[in-house]
Amino acid sequence: MAGNTFGKAFKITTYGESHGPATGVIIDGCPAGIDIDPQFVQDELDKRRPGQSKITTQRKESDTVQILSGIFEGKSTGTPISMLIPNEDQRSKDYAHNRDVYRPSHADYTYDAKYGIRDYRGGGRASARETAARVAAGAIAKILLQQAGIRLMAHVSAVGTIQAPPLMRGDFDHFIRLREANIVRCIDPETAARMEHDIDSIRKEGDTIGGKISCIISGCPAGLGEPVFDKLHADLAKAMLSINAVHGFEYGSGFAGSEMRGSQHNDIFVPGENGPTTISNHSGGIQGGISNGMDITFTVAFKPVATIMQEQQTVNAAGEKTEIKGKGRHDPCVVPRAVVIVEAMAALVLADHLLRNRLARFA
Amino acid sequence: MAGNTFGKAFKITTYGESHGPATGVIIDGCPAGIDIDPQFVQDELDKRRPGQSKITTQRKESDTVQILSGIFEGKSTGTPISMLIPNEDQRSKDYAHNRDVYRPSHADYTYDAKYGIRDYRGGGRASARETAARVAAGAIAKILLQQAGIRLMAHVSAVGTIQAPPLMRGDFDHFIRLREANIVRCIDPETAARMEHDIDSIRKEGDTIGGKISCIISGCPAGLGEPVFDKLHADLAKAMLSINAVHGFEYGSGFAGSEMRGSQHNDIFVPGENGPTTISNHSGGIQGGISNGMDITFTVAFKPVATIMQEQQTVNAAGEKTEIKGKGRHDPCVVPRAVVIVEAMAALVLADHLLRNRLARFA
Amino acid sequence: MAGNTFGKAFKITTYGESHGPATGVIIDGCPAGIDIDPQFVQDELDKRRPGQSKITTQRKESDTVQILSGIFEGKSTGTPISMLIPNEDQRSKDYAHNRDVYRPSHADYTYDAKYGIRDYRGGGRASARETAARVAAGAIAKILLQQAGIRLMAHVSAVGTIQAPPLMRGDFDHFIRLREANIVRCIDPETAARMEHDIDSIRKEGDTIGGKISCIISGCPAGLGEPVFDKLHADLAKAMLSINAVHGFEYGSGFAGSEMRGSQHNDIFVPGENGPTTISNHSGGIQGGISNGMDITFTVAFKPVATIMQEQQTVNAAGEKTEIKGKGRHDPCVVPRAVVIVEAMAALVLADHLLRNRLARFA
Amino acid sequence: MAGNTFGKAFKITTYGESHGPATGVIIDGCPAGIDIDPQFVQDELDKRRPGQSKITTQRKESDTVQILSGIFEGKSTGTPISMLIPNEDQRSKDYAHNRDVYRPSHADYTYDAKYGIRDYRGGGRASARETAARVAAGAIAKILLQQAGIRLMAHVSAVGTIQAPPLMRGDFDHFIRLREANIVRCIDPETAARMEHDIDSIRKEGDTIGGKISCIISGCPAGLGEPVFDKLHADLAKAMLSINAVHGFEYGSGFAGSEMRGSQHNDIFVPGENGPTTISNHSGGIQGGISNGMDITFTVAFKPVATIMQEQQTVNAAGEKTEIKGKGRHDPCVVPRAVVIVEAMAALVLADHLLRNRLARFA
Repeated sequence: MAGNTFGKAFKITTYGESHGPATGVIIDGCPAGIDIDPQFVQDELDKRRPGQSKITTQRKESDTVQILSGIFEGKSTGTPISMLIPNEDQRSKDYAHNRDVYRPSHADYTYDAKYGIRDYRGGGRASARETAARVAAGAIAKILLQQAGIRLMAHVSAVGTIQAPPLMRGDFDHFIRLREANIVRCIDPETAARMEHDIDSIRKEGDTIGGKISCIISGCPAGLGEPVFDKLHADLAKAMLSINAVHGFEYGSGFAGSEMRGSQHNDIFVPGENGPTTISNHSGGIQGGISNGMDITFTVAFKPVATIMQEQQTVNAAGEKTEIKGKGRHDPCVVPRAVVIVEAMAALVLADHLLRNRLARFA
Repeated sequence: MAGNTFGKAFKITTYGESHGPATGVIIDGCPAGIDIDPQFVQDELDKRRPGQSKITTQRKESDTVQILSGIFEGKSTGTPISMLIPNEDQRSKDYAHNRDVYRPSHADYTYDAKYGIRDYRGGGRASARETAARVAAGAIAKILLQQAGIRLMAHVSAVGTIQAPPLMRGDFDHFIRLREANIVRCIDPETAARMEHDIDSIRKEGDTIGGKISCIISGCPAGLGEPVFDKLHADLAKAMLSINAVHGFEYGSGFAGSEMRGSQHNDIFVPGENGPTTISNHSGGIQGGISNGMDITFTVAFKPVATIMQEQQTVNAAGEKTEIKGKGRHDPCVVPRAVVIVEAMAALVLADHLLRNRLARFA
Repeated sequence: MAGNTFGKAFKITTYGESHGPATGVIIDGCPAGIDIDPQFVQDELDKRRPGQSKITTQRKESDTVQILSGIFEGKSTGTPISMLIPNEDQRSKDYAHNRDVYRPSHADYTYDAKYGIRDYRGGGRASARETAARVAAGAIAKILLQQAGIRLMAHVSAVGTIQAPPLMRGDFDHFIRLREANIVRCIDPETAARMEHDIDSIRKEGDTIGGKISCIISGCPAGLGEPVFDKLHADLAKAMLSINAVHGFEYGSGFAGSEMRGSQHNDIFVPGENGPTTISNHSGGIQGGISNGMDITFTVAFKPVATIMQEQQTVNAAGEKTEIKGKGRHDPCVVPRAVVIVEAMAALVLADHLLRNRLARFA
Repeated sequence: MAGNTFGKAFKITTYGESHGPATGVIIDGCPAGIDIDPQFVQDELDKRRPGQSKITTQRKESDTVQILSGIFEGKSTGTPISMLIPNEDQRSKDYAHNRDVYRPSHADYTYDAKYGIRDYRGGGRASARETAARVAAGAIAKILLQQAGIRLMAHVSAVGTIQAPPLMRGDFDHFIRLREANIVRCIDPETAARMEHDIDSIRKEGDTIGGKISCIISGCPAGLGEPVFDKLHADLAKAMLSINAVHGFEYGSGFAGSEMRGSQHNDIFVPGENGPTTISNHSGGIQGGISNGMDITFTVAFKPVATIMQEQQTVNAAGEKTEIKGKGRHDPCVVPRAVVIVEAMAALVLADHLLRNRLARFA
């Protein structure tokens, strides 16, 4: 039972290997009648595209999306939306040395252990190239959410030990302009400069560094989330942990909340215009697994990229000791390009639950 | 589209409200031919049972499980296993004051917002009483795993800011005896004593405190996990975040890993008897979403219990300001009773993936 | 991957063996806010109950339903509805002779071949007793449909070669009274009398006979059904074929339609008050897998009951020849009791699609 | 909740409109390590291809399949297999007259009623062109089944009232050669000649005719099928009813079985080499929803094609009376091209259940 499908009502299935002909996605469950601008899908993909700055991999991919079905005369028709992104810059020779060697902290060994065969070129299916399909699908989800008044924004909140100031409510369009004004994709320009400098010097050492991405969702109505297993934050956690290199997820007060007392942590309700609001938001906009109308906030931790330009001991497919040195084209830090992936996966979760919630009440 | 089902191959569906006649679970997908000892299921439930010590709620429930189907002459038959746990101590009057008041950081408001109706008695479906059904199902999953040589153990690794030493490999039976020897369920006796003291004094203040549970799984073969969405750690994350009061999840190096460099973080492969092993285990036993045969490790963060024995401002169903003070019977700290819930959910994920992995290869 | 769950939005999971403690069902996905009368559920069960007439099995079961969750103060709450029907008259000794013998045209051999173990008492999970859970769930589905203006009615349209006149539109309440006025459950009194006579004489010979049930659904709005796989009639077909002893399904013109020409078969559209209607209804109310607002009509074929009171050659579990003669308490013809099962399964399909269709359009 | 996914373990999702850029499919769940010959996939598609004889539509499509992922160095890798079939001969102008008119017994009205929008060109998603994707996926399923020793074969068993003799066991390769030797795809040459003559004269009248396809599956081991809802025949029924124009399904004794007595109908077990076999096979190879090792047999009824070259009364989107006459390129009888579609859907069901059955037992 393979696991390439995500979502229940707004459901995506992705396919594609890093150096195969294409990667792509089918969305099944996008409601009919939504205006879809293909340029928006392309713009989102451009944020994930390799080669966009000196601190990202230099692989050259235009990541041009083709929409094959499900949209007619500019509108979704309710039938499956198929999107395809051809691979262009497949320097598979760069990866011949990976054929029989298990790169440390990569998925080479585990894919062999599971399937007995793997497409070793560029990581095959385990490559983060697969996330292009998620970004394309996420763009459609964002369009749907926008029409429901829901906005989301992520940014790089940490690179190594460099932490950005916490996200505040405010003008999302302004924040996104600030974020896109630097190659690290951190909203705070001063922090961004330090992060960029750090990543660049680590890159020159042939090393890599981890980081964090924080996300805020506003305009989400109360009521989204399906207890007891498909709680809104549980689905967000799964979505985030399914992204390459993610090692942790927290929402609301998160790990810090586990050190607090109930009397500090409880979010006091006060009357609001559209139902109660809370003074603090340690709940991160979700109570009992259901959105409460406050901002939804969460943070995602990424480990450092495993491919480093240094020699490492390892083992080959025959079980013998060997050495490997990173070749190919890789990112010194994954978080700048992952911002749009985090947003895409969050948008997919929200779109799914927005639709699912339509069935909560009879009348 | 409700969300009361978990798992795809070893699949459970739970039901039941805190003060209804019963809570229970159906397991669909337990393979035939497994010896099932009902006493083991009961023993697991007893670890979650209320009223087991002075630092847990004093609600009196025997939590006696009835097995209604799927087991014949001591063996699973491959048909659905239905288990029912009657509710006994339903002091619903304790909760009459909750009918029209939204308790801070509880799910009262969000259930009303979603469904337009709620069983307000003791939190209804949002009560942690629902996890009894998970523990019963998890017991069956543990039996299945044990027969496949997989063991798992969780313990309380933090209460507030009191941290236990990290979990080490070793004799699980010994560790579990150590853990069960104190009412906090921390393996380290000295830390356990400090934790117990802290919880008890917080309880006396009418307050509550958060904490963490860490889990280790050993004997897991390489190959479990289904990329790209149903990665093993992604399903663990969802499982953990679906437990009441959980605000965070990390596996392997977790959040700390995001501050590391690739050259420090990479787990170097060395030849092993049953395939390669790694020197360090920052990967937490999972690479590319697939188990690599090393120990699987993760930590779960719990917020403080929301019900405190202090007066709090809040809002009622009419949207007006009001005050509330905790009544009923509640835990000052949820983690001691949650240890077996974390284990149960982890066991359900592992059992599901153990079965799913049977389909990975043709031959 | 077991198969005890049916439906996607209005989803049921059943459990229970013929001679275990109970059979039952969880409904996950019943929307909140529906008035549920438990007596209606019981009334439906009474139509399937054994021992209701001389032409049904004489097993004594009151089939008293217990509702364990999901309904609060008379209304559905949106949480899982669990219903349990205890088994009372378990004369398991009647079945000891079945332990090692494979009854002809029963599921004894195939359960053994699949699971390597089976609860041999009264057919275990393969017993039609399992359908009690479907009828209970179907009753809730009917309540939901009724509030949406959808009515359905089935009756016995054939016993052996005795055919009833075709179902016509009309007053469903009147039809159901006519049907319940005879023990065969055929609307046409004259045909019912002949059927009853036939079944009774076949019973006296220790033999059994097959039959057909036809169903009509009216008030169904246009738009239900989910191409391309979950077409409304495809889900109805699966639902019907999942009932014990069913060997065939046809809707609209059915098998006879395959002998017609397009010029005869096409349903000509004419203007109607709520969208177009058709003059003929060879489409059986469904076009392209989606309801068109006309009556939905289908027919289900049941094979004769396999248990006969005659000696038969067969094979035992050791693979040796042996003989068997039916004991226990069985129906000479299954269709009279199956009418409410056909209705229940149809109601479950309709309720599922009524909910699913809420997601077809964005606005 | 859309319905474009079929299967649970061997799972397909299709997309594409008749006159969009392409139709295609993702298979998720094909096990790793199977030798896949792309030419076999193409050969299967060629049997469904339009324009293959005078009694099929003259639309010119090469139906050339592109495999985009999931196969590496000739073998399946366990990752999703994506296959794409570009549309070439899109004479969309032929369909401009359909924009606002509801063709009788087509899905024009119901798609509009459901989605509020439709791609009216050539039937859009409701076109049988969608089945090309099923045939491609079914080809992969057939390869998997063949390696497990399971063979299947369908042929045209009726055109209008012309019936072929019943299918007999025998050499499937020989039968398929006989079938492919005539353009009707009936195994019996004499019947085929009469069918061909009949179809051709009906075509000249601008009319169409229904028919039946029968299928036989041999080599299926005992044990496939998942009670109580995913019975093997229930999933076959759904698969068949999901094919365009299908109005009925029966397996084993089918509708005729409903007229029989138990004493005639029961299949007497006799000892066999690999478990018991039966003398007769009224059960159609399936008992209690699980295969028993005998041949699986079923028949599918197709209504006549709705597009006729005659003037018909109908209604337009504004609800007014109008007339329509079939234009475009259509089949006078759908069954010759549908033989490979029936086989494909049957193969998908069998492959799914072959995998699912791996989870039935623990050891």
